[in-house]
Amino acid sequence: MHAEKYLQTINGEIWLVEDERENMKISYRIREVIFSEPSAFQHVMILDSYDFGRMLVLDGVVQTTSIDGHIYNEMISHVPLSIHPNPERVLIIGGGDCGAAREAVKYKNVKSIDMVEIDELVVKVCKKHLQEVSGNLSDPRVNFIYQDGIEHVKKYKNHYDVVIVDSSDPIGPAKQLFERSFYEDIYRALKDDGLMVCQSQSPVFHMDILKQTAGHIRDLFPHMKIYTATVPTYPGGLWSFTLGSKKYKDISVTDFDKNTRYVNQHILQACFQLPEFLRHQFS
Amino acid sequence: MHAEKYLQTINGEIWLVEDERENMKISYRIREVIFSEPSAFQHVMILDSYDFGRMLVLDGVVQTTSIDGHIYNEMISHVPLSIHPNPERVLIIGGGDCGAAREAVKYKNVKSIDMVEIDELVVKVCKKHLQEVSGNLSDPRVNFIYQDGIEHVKKYKNHYDVVIVDSSDPIGPAKQLFERSFYEDIYRALKDDGLMVCQSQSPVFHMDILKQTAGHIRDLFPHMKIYTATVPTYPGGLWSFTLGSKKYKDISVTDFDKNTRYVNQHILQACFQLPEFLRHQFS
Repeated sequence: MHAEKYLQTINGEIWLVEDERENMKISYRIREVIFSEPSAFQHVMILDSYDFGRMLVLDGVVQTTSIDGHIYNEMISHVPLSIHPNPERVLIIGGGDCGAAREAVKYKNVKSIDMVEIDELVVKVCKKHLQEVSGNLSDPRVNFIYQDGIEHVKKYKNHYDVVIVDSSDPIGPAKQLFERSFYEDIYRALKDDGLMVCQSQSPVFHMDILKQTAGHIRDLFPHMKIYTATVPTYPGGLWSFTLGSKKYKDISVTDFDKNTRYVNQHILQACFQLPEFLRHQFS
Repeated sequence: MHAEKYLQTINGEIWLVEDERENMKISYRIREVIFSEPSAFQHVMILDSYDFGRMLVLDGVVQTTSIDGHIYNEMISHVPLSIHPNPERVLIIGGGDCGAAREAVKYKNVKSIDMVEIDELVVKVCKKHLQEVSGNLSDPRVNFIYQDGIEHVKKYKNHYDVVIVDSSDPIGPAKQLFERSFYEDIYRALKDDGLMVCQSQSPVFHMDILKQTAGHIRDLFPHMKIYTATVPTYPGGLWSFTLGSKKYKDISVTDFDKNTRYVNQHILQACFQLPEFLRHQFS
């Protein structure tokens, strides 16, 4: 059951050593390996860690945890859904942990959420073993579609109000989700007043990715905006999201009333106030 | 020269393994050990790391780095100095990397900065080997006082406009800087319209310390406020600062014009907008 490639046993204890960065490693002490199997796309693990509770780990990289998964998921969903005044048709690309969809169903005016995740195994294990994040999501408005998001979005024109790109890092299956042609397809799939948001990596370690993403979106959409949040289990903590919008650019909600742990009315505004090194770069 | 206790050689490469947390370790690949000696108080190292440039490491724990030291130092100094409308006498307790004092000298109305650091060796090596953070500080308004901050602050009454407590973690020499009697002494040392700020640890990993600190300050001062910043090299990224003020509570500066890399006029306001789990806890 152990994935020897990703886990190390040191003095009788199991450690996950996140090794993706050449010059910095983060190691988590693991209480129990809950699930560990390869899918057709990647190695999927659910680990129970001492400090962060249960974690979804793909190809050895922590994706989301019981302790802080809600920060990322609330920020990638409530910001766009609080800018668009009437988001009826929502598309989530990726988001296999179900956390973004779980937030989106909190909006009564949302009529359908197409959740297009390439890897069915991720959804299956998160619903079963990571309910702190997935909430074992079962709202009838959510359509689970197990397909490549790239292919899905090509099929639509003038269809969605909000598109949320909840991808993993731009290596492996998610690489194409950072390419310009993908954002062109999203633009086409959005209605005339539609908007999109994507996670755009760490401004500390991957400014190149953020710049590239912001550049694509600025070229295509009348409005491009960057916002940030602090996600403790992502290297560097500071994380960026990039918004592309055809029409709406400000928070339309004035009395945010969803049940959340990170987002509130103030955070919806404050998250767009960028540190000087980012403001300078993108203003 | 190597401090074997804190550094490990793995496959011929030097790594600093931050071990303070039982269940999570962060390892940094090190290019060169620039300085490594024990002082009377702690083990002091300057390491040149691949990802974060030069680092100040005390007893094996990263304190500040070339890459992100400015975030912490700008936030702990510009926020109080932009709230107090006329900060003439400033006291910095700790802050041996000189980064907070370096920011404070950017204010023309500041007449004197007493920098009270218990460990002279820290100041000496930061001025020499960590100039990205210290700027080799040599403003004549800065008085370097090598003494225990606890003892220093006891000697003053109605004297300072702004007190900045830039301590290390509440273990070792800094432990007493988190105790109630210390804040009482600061209150006494402040003028009738004075204010103080202290670093109050990670709201993710040390909510107990933040609660205790905020509690002491709320008991003593008419105004208590918490603000946050993201410091990539601190575990969890999200970092808290707690402000205690006798009179002023809002940012008085309207056109922040200091040369900074993180703080700007917007951040001065946005940093007080707390995520819901903190707002709920402290409102």
